[in-house]
Amino acid sequence: MKIGRLNHVGVAVPDIEAAKATYAGLYGADEATQTKDFPHLGVRVAFVHLANSEIELLEPLGDDSPVHKFLERNPRGGQHHLCFEVPDIVAARDAMVAKGATVLGTGEPYIGAHGVPVIFIHPKNSHGQLIELMQEPA
Amino acid sequence: MKIGRLNHVGVAVPDIEAAKATYAGLYGADEATQTKDFPHLGVRVAFVHLANSEIELLEPLGDDSPVHKFLERNPRGGQHHLCFEVPDIVAARDAMVAKGATVLGTGEPYIGAHGVPVIFIHPKNSHGQLIELMQEPA
Repeated sequence: MKIGRLNHVGVAVPDIEAAKATYAGLYGADEATQTKDFPHLGVRVAFVHLANSEIELLEPLGDDSPVHKFLERNPRGGQHHLCFEVPDIVAARDAMVAKGATVLGTGEPYIGAHGVPVIFIHPKNSHGQLIELMQEPA
Repeated sequence: MKIGRLNHVGVAVPDIEAAKATYAGLYGADEATQTKDFPHLGVRVAFVHLANSEIELLEPLGDDSPVHKFLERNPRGGQHHLCFEVPDIVAARDAMVAKGATVLGTGEPYIGAHGVPVIFIHPKNSHGQLIELMQEPA
Protein backbone atom coordinates (compact mmCIF):
# COMPACT_ATOMS: atom_id res chain seq x y z
CA MET A 1 0.00 0.00 0.00
CA LYS A 2 1.21 3.48 -0.87
CA ILE A 3 -0.58 6.67 0.10
CA GLY A 4 -1.41 9.17 -2.63
CA ARG A 5 -2.28 12.87 -2.45
CA LEU A 6 -2.51 14.84 0.77
CA ASN A 7 -6.24 15.41 0.36
CA HIS A 8 -6.48 17.84 3.26
CA VAL A 9 -5.15 18.95 6.62
CA GLY A 10 -7.74 18.83 9.40
CA VAL A 11 -7.73 21.89 11.65
CA ALA A 12 -10.00 22.05 14.70
CA VAL A 13 -11.43 25.46 15.63
CA PRO A 14 -14.00 26.66 18.14
CA ASP A 15 -15.81 28.76 15.48
CA ILE A 16 -15.68 27.83 11.79
CA GLU A 17 -17.08 31.12 10.48
CA ALA A 18 -14.45 33.08 12.42
CA ALA A 19 -11.74 30.79 11.04
CA LYS A 20 -12.99 31.18 7.45
CA ALA A 21 -12.93 34.94 7.94
CA THR A 22 -9.30 34.72 9.11
CA TYR A 23 -8.10 32.56 6.21
CA ALA A 24 -9.85 34.92 3.79
CA GLY A 25 -9.02 38.23 5.46
CA LEU A 26 -5.46 37.61 6.65
CA TYR A 27 -4.17 35.12 4.06
CA GLY A 28 -6.40 35.81 1.04
CA ALA A 29 -7.61 32.19 0.98
CA ASP A 30 -11.18 33.22 0.24
CA GLU A 31 -12.43 30.13 -1.61
CA ALA A 32 -14.24 28.01 0.95
CA THR A 33 -17.26 25.74 0.95
CA GLN A 34 -20.44 26.42 2.87
CA THR A 35 -20.29 25.05 6.41
CA LYS A 36 -22.17 21.79 6.70
CA ASP A 37 -23.33 19.83 9.74
CA PHE A 38 -22.51 16.13 10.04
CA PRO A 39 -24.42 15.03 13.14
CA HIS A 40 -23.40 11.36 12.74
CA LEU A 41 -19.73 12.43 12.74
CA GLY A 42 -20.14 14.97 15.56
CA VAL A 43 -18.67 17.85 13.57
CA ARG A 44 -19.47 20.87 11.46
CA VAL A 45 -17.13 21.08 8.45
CA ALA A 46 -15.99 23.60 5.85
CA PHE A 47 -13.14 23.30 3.37
CA VAL A 48 -10.77 26.15 2.51
CA HIS A 49 -9.41 25.56 -0.99
CA LEU A 50 -5.67 25.91 -1.55
CA ALA A 51 -3.82 25.67 -4.87
CA ASN A 52 -2.85 22.02 -4.31
CA SER A 53 -4.82 20.79 -1.28
CA GLU A 54 -7.43 21.87 1.26
CA ILE A 55 -7.80 22.82 4.89
CA GLU A 56 -10.68 21.00 6.55
CA LEU A 57 -12.03 23.23 9.32
CA LEU A 58 -13.70 21.19 12.07
CA GLU A 59 -16.01 22.55 14.78
CA PRO A 60 -17.53 20.26 17.40
CA LEU A 61 -21.20 19.41 16.99
CA GLY A 62 -22.99 17.78 19.92
CA ASP A 63 -21.71 16.79 23.34
CA ASP A 64 -19.86 13.64 22.29
CA SER A 65 -17.99 15.22 19.37
CA PRO A 66 -14.53 13.71 18.80
CA VAL A 67 -13.22 17.26 18.50
CA HIS A 68 -14.34 18.28 22.02
CA LYS A 69 -11.39 16.72 23.83
CA PHE A 70 -8.98 18.20 21.34
CA LEU A 71 -10.35 21.70 21.97
CA GLU A 72 -10.24 21.15 25.72
CA ARG A 73 -6.51 20.56 25.38
CA ASN A 74 -6.13 23.27 22.72
CA PRO A 75 -8.80 25.87 23.44
CA ARG A 76 -7.83 28.23 20.59
CA GLY A 77 -7.82 25.36 18.09
CA GLY A 78 -5.00 23.73 16.14
CA GLN A 79 -3.90 21.07 13.68
CA HIS A 80 -5.88 17.88 14.13
CA HIS A 81 -5.08 15.31 11.41
CA LEU A 82 -3.59 14.63 7.96
CA CYS A 83 -5.71 12.92 5.30
CA PHE A 84 -4.13 10.91 2.50
CA GLU A 85 -5.91 9.40 -0.50
CA VAL A 86 -5.66 5.66 -1.16
CA PRO A 87 -6.97 3.81 -4.24
CA ASP A 88 -8.86 1.16 -2.24
CA ILE A 89 -9.96 1.86 1.33
CA VAL A 90 -10.67 -1.77 2.21
CA ALA A 91 -7.26 -2.89 0.94
CA ALA A 92 -5.70 -0.02 2.87
CA ARG A 93 -7.55 -0.99 6.06
CA ASP A 94 -6.43 -4.61 5.64
CA ALA A 95 -2.83 -3.48 5.10
CA MET A 96 -2.96 -1.34 8.26
CA VAL A 97 -4.31 -4.22 10.34
CA ALA A 98 -1.76 -6.65 8.86
CA LYS A 99 1.02 -4.27 9.89
CA GLY A 100 -0.30 -4.08 13.45
CA ALA A 101 -1.71 -0.55 13.29
CA THR A 102 -4.87 0.39 15.22
CA VAL A 103 -7.84 1.49 13.11
CA LEU A 104 -10.10 3.72 15.25
CA GLY A 105 -13.78 3.03 15.90
CA THR A 106 -15.25 -0.24 14.67
CA GLY A 107 -12.39 -0.79 12.24
CA GLU A 108 -14.82 -0.59 9.30
CA PRO A 109 -14.57 2.24 6.74
CA TYR A 110 -17.40 4.77 7.00
CA ILE A 111 -18.57 7.69 4.87
CA GLY A 112 -16.73 10.90 5.78
CA ALA A 113 -17.36 14.57 4.98
CA HIS A 114 -16.31 14.09 1.33
CA GLY A 115 -18.90 11.37 0.73
CA VAL A 116 -16.30 8.63 0.31
CA PRO A 117 -15.26 5.96 2.84
CA VAL A 118 -12.50 6.75 5.32
CA ILE A 119 -10.63 5.23 8.26
CA PHE A 120 -8.50 6.83 10.96
CA ILE A 121 -5.23 5.36 12.26
CA HIS A 122 -4.39 5.82 15.96
CA PRO A 123 -1.75 8.52 16.60
CA LYS A 124 0.34 6.02 18.59
CA ASN A 125 1.17 4.28 15.29
CA SER A 126 2.53 7.46 13.65
CA HIS A 127 4.57 9.32 16.29
CA GLY A 128 1.62 11.25 17.70
CA GLN A 129 0.15 12.09 14.29
CA LEU A 130 -3.53 11.27 13.69
CA ILE A 131 -3.82 9.97 10.10
CA GLU A 132 -6.98 9.67 8.00
CA LEU A 133 -7.01 7.47 4.91
CA MET A 134 -9.68 8.30 2.32
CA GLN A 135 -10.83 6.41 -0.74
CA GLU A 136 -9.80 8.53 -3.74
CA PRO A 137 -12.79 10.63 -4.82
CA ALA A 138 -14.05 9.45 -8.23
CA MET B 1 -1.84 39.16 -0.50
CA LYS B 2 -3.02 35.66 -1.33
CA ILE B 3 -1.27 32.49 -0.23
CA GLY B 4 -0.34 29.92 -2.86
CA ARG B 5 0.51 26.22 -2.56
CA LEU B 6 0.62 24.33 0.71
CA ASN B 7 4.37 23.76 0.44
CA HIS B 8 4.51 21.41 3.43
CA VAL B 9 3.04 20.37 6.76
CA GLY B 10 5.54 20.56 9.62
CA VAL B 11 5.42 17.55 11.95
CA ALA B 12 7.58 17.46 15.09
CA VAL B 13 8.98 14.09 16.15
CA PRO B 14 11.47 12.94 18.80
CA ASP B 15 13.38 10.80 16.25
CA ILE B 16 13.38 11.63 12.52
CA GLU B 17 14.83 8.31 11.35
CA ALA B 18 12.13 6.38 13.23
CA ALA B 19 9.46 8.63 11.70
CA LYS B 20 10.86 8.17 8.17
CA ALA B 21 10.76 4.42 8.75
CA THR B 22 7.10 4.65 9.78
CA TYR B 23 6.01 6.75 6.80
CA ALA B 24 7.85 4.32 4.48
CA GLY B 25 6.95 1.06 6.19
CA LEU B 26 3.36 1.71 7.25
CA TYR B 27 2.17 4.14 4.56
CA GLY B 28 4.51 3.36 1.64
CA ALA B 29 5.71 6.99 1.54
CA ASP B 30 9.31 5.95 0.96
CA GLU B 31 10.63 8.99 -0.91
CA ALA B 32 12.34 11.18 1.64
CA THR B 33 15.35 13.44 1.71
CA GLN B 34 18.46 12.82 3.76
CA THR B 35 18.18 14.27 7.26
CA LYS B 36 20.05 17.55 7.54
CA ASP B 37 21.10 19.57 10.58
CA PHE B 38 20.27 23.28 10.74
CA PRO B 39 22.07 24.46 13.90
CA HIS B 40 21.07 28.12 13.36
CA LEU B 41 17.39 27.04 13.25
CA GLY B 42 17.70 24.58 16.15
CA VAL B 43 16.30 21.64 14.18
CA ARG B 44 17.18 18.56 12.18
CA VAL B 45 14.95 18.28 9.09
CA ALA B 46 13.91 15.70 6.50
CA PHE B 47 11.14 15.94 3.91
CA VAL B 48 8.82 13.07 3.04
CA HIS B 49 7.59 13.57 -0.53
CA LEU B 50 3.87 13.20 -1.22
CA ALA B 51 2.14 13.36 -4.60
CA ASN B 52 1.15 17.02 -4.17
CA SER B 53 3.00 18.33 -1.11
CA GLU B 54 5.53 17.32 1.55
CA ILE B 55 5.75 16.46 5.22
CA GLU B 56 8.58 18.32 6.96
CA LEU B 57 9.81 16.16 9.83
CA LEU B 58 11.38 18.27 12.58
CA GLU B 59 13.59 16.98 15.39
CA PRO B 60 15.01 19.33 18.02
CA LEU B 61 18.72 20.17 17.72
CA GLY B 62 20.38 21.87 20.67
CA ASP B 63 19.00 22.94 24.02
CA ASP B 64 17.18 26.06 22.82
CA SER B 65 15.41 24.42 19.88
CA PRO B 66 11.99 25.93 19.15
CA VAL B 67 10.68 22.36 18.89
CA HIS B 68 11.68 21.42 22.47
CA LYS B 69 8.67 23.02 24.14
CA PHE B 70 6.34 21.47 21.60
CA LEU B 71 7.68 17.99 22.36
CA GLU B 72 7.45 18.65 26.11
CA ARG B 73 3.72 19.21 25.61
CA ASN B 74 3.43 16.43 22.99
CA PRO B 75 6.09 13.85 23.87
CA ARG B 76 5.22 11.43 21.05
CA GLY B 77 5.30 14.23 18.48
CA GLY B 78 2.55 15.81 16.41
CA GLN B 79 1.51 18.41 13.87
CA HIS B 80 3.50 21.62 14.26
CA HIS B 81 2.80 24.11 11.45
CA LEU B 82 1.44 24.70 7.94
CA CYS B 83 3.65 26.36 5.32
CA PHE B 84 2.18 28.30 2.40
CA GLU B 85 4.08 29.75 -0.55
CA VAL B 86 3.87 33.45 -1.31
CA PRO B 87 5.28 35.23 -4.38
CA ASP B 88 7.10 37.94 -2.39
CA ILE B 89 8.05 37.32 1.24
CA VAL B 90 8.74 40.98 2.06
CA ALA B 91 5.38 42.06 0.63
CA ALA B 92 3.74 39.23 2.58
CA ARG B 93 5.46 40.29 5.80
CA ASP B 94 4.38 43.90 5.25
CA ALA B 95 0.80 42.74 4.61
CA MET B 96 0.80 40.68 7.82
CA VAL B 97 2.08 43.62 9.88
CA ALA B 98 -0.40 46.01 8.25
CA LYS B 99 -3.22 43.65 9.23
CA GLY B 100 -2.05 43.55 12.84
CA ALA B 101 -0.63 40.00 12.82
CA THR B 102 2.45 39.14 14.89
CA VAL B 103 5.50 37.99 12.94
CA LEU B 104 7.67 35.80 15.18
CA GLY B 105 11.33 36.51 15.97
CA THR B 106 12.85 39.76 14.72
CA GLY B 107 10.08 40.21 12.16
CA GLU B 108 12.62 39.98 9.33
CA PRO B 109 12.46 37.08 6.83
CA TYR B 110 15.29 34.57 7.26
CA ILE B 111 16.52 31.58 5.26
CA GLY B 112 14.65 28.38 6.18
CA ALA B 113 15.32 24.72 5.48
CA HIS B 114 14.40 25.12 1.78
CA GLY B 115 17.01 27.81 1.22
CA VAL B 116 14.43 30.54 0.65
CA PRO B 117 13.29 33.27 3.05
CA VAL B 118 10.44 32.55 5.45
CA ILE B 119 8.47 34.13 8.27
CA PHE B 120 6.24 32.60 10.94
CA ILE B 121 2.92 34.09 12.07
CA HIS B 122 1.94 33.71 15.74
CA PRO B 123 -0.72 31.03 16.36
CA LYS B 124 -2.88 33.58 18.19
CA ASN B 125 -3.59 35.23 14.82
CA SER B 126 -4.89 32.02 13.22
CA HIS B 127 -7.01 30.21 15.80
CA GLY B 128 -4.13 28.32 17.38
CA GLN B 129 -2.53 27.39 14.06
CA LEU B 130 1.17 28.22 13.58
CA ILE B 131 1.60 29.42 9.97
CA GLU B 132 4.83 29.68 7.98
CA LEU B 133 4.97 31.80 4.85
CA MET B 134 7.73 30.90 2.38
CA GLN B 135 9.00 32.72 -0.67
CA GLU B 136 8.09 30.53 -3.67
CA PRO B 137 11.14 28.42 -4.57
CA ALA B 138 12.55 29.51 -7.96
